[in-house]
Amino acid sequence: MLKDFPLAEVYQLLEPGPVVLLATAHRGHPNLMPMSWHMMVEFTPPMLACIVSGANHSFTALRLTKEAVIAIPTAELAATVVKVGNVSGRDVDKFERFRLTPLPARRVSAPLVAECYANLECKVVDTRMVGRYNMFVLEVVKAWVDRARRRPRTLHHQGFGKFVIDGDVIRLRSAKA
Amino acid sequence: MLKDFPLAEVYQLLEPGPVVLLATAHRGHPNLMPMSWHMMVEFTPPMLACIVSGANHSFTALRLTKEAVIAIPTAELAATVVKVGNVSGRDVDKFERFRLTPLPARRVSAPLVAECYANLECKVVDTRMVGRYNMFVLEVVKAWVDRARRRPRTLHHQGFGKFVIDGDVIRLRSAKA
Repeated sequence: MLKDFPLAEVYQLLEPGPVVLLATAHRGHPNLMPMSWHMMVEFTPPMLACIVSGANHSFTALRLTKEAVIAIPTAELAATVVKVGNVSGRDVDKFERFRLTPLPARRVSAPLVAECYANLECKVVDTRMVGRYNMFVLEVVKAWVDRARRRPRTLHHQGFGKFVIDGDVIRLRSAKA
Repeated sequence: MLKDFPLAEVYQLLEPGPVVLLATAHRGHPNLMPMSWHMMVEFTPPMLACIVSGANHSFTALRLTKEAVIAIPTAELAATVVKVGNVSGRDVDKFERFRLTPLPARRVSAPLVAECYANLECKVVDTRMVGRYNMFVLEVVKAWVDRARRRPRTLHHQGFGKFVIDGDVIRLRSAKA
């Protein structure tokens, strides 16, 4: 069950570098791609940058609609994440093919992914680095997290289908975010 | 023992989103800061983007020298990473204070960090996003990895000294990097 999540804490979800699914919708066609090339850019409002290759079908949807959902899958979805990355949205409806459930978002036309631990509704706010680096800057305008999941183990891709899964958590005293 | 590491595989080190230490040297003073806001931008030559706040002492060194080393610590160094982030290089020599060993790099003036699993020598190649986002684009020109360490467990920061440590590794069939 996805619950409201404070925008000021979004960095805590993205800063650890999880593989995410970028969900878009263009002309009524929802689509998904796995993405690891993203980083936080600002705490509040939460902003992130990400690289989406022009070779990806999602590139056009992101560029034209300027909207996306960043969904954070956990380890149970690892096999699905790889499959999502190995076919193109040009050829298949990935939600249907991989039995993922699109849910309506509140602020964007792209869908949430019900099976994911967290979903971040995003608007593209800067496209000036798209030409040079395929880099989009997004602002997170609404965030959802499934709080019933106490130890979500996210995935960290190391190339060619090799993933490290979140292990132990340690807590140290720190004065800073 | 740091060994040469292929530049074309550097993305496998950074894409999983580990906390890194950004090492700089300015006017003979080496400095360090922890950093989680970074992402890959290009495979070859390997390029990355990172955010370094103007409030950080490292910002000036990075902007003026246009050189840095990105060192990747493992879980054993977690307490040190937090301490490195809680003091300023304005006030202390962090290498000395935290008993870290600077080693000469080959291509840049910033030091390698001997205790880290991997060290990436970087040159700043684009400062056009510094004004707006404090974003630097770096090219990795030389990479070193301690290959004697078979299961390096990197750190993933979730805010205020909370880290997730790398856990299990899974391997799935994938056609793509």
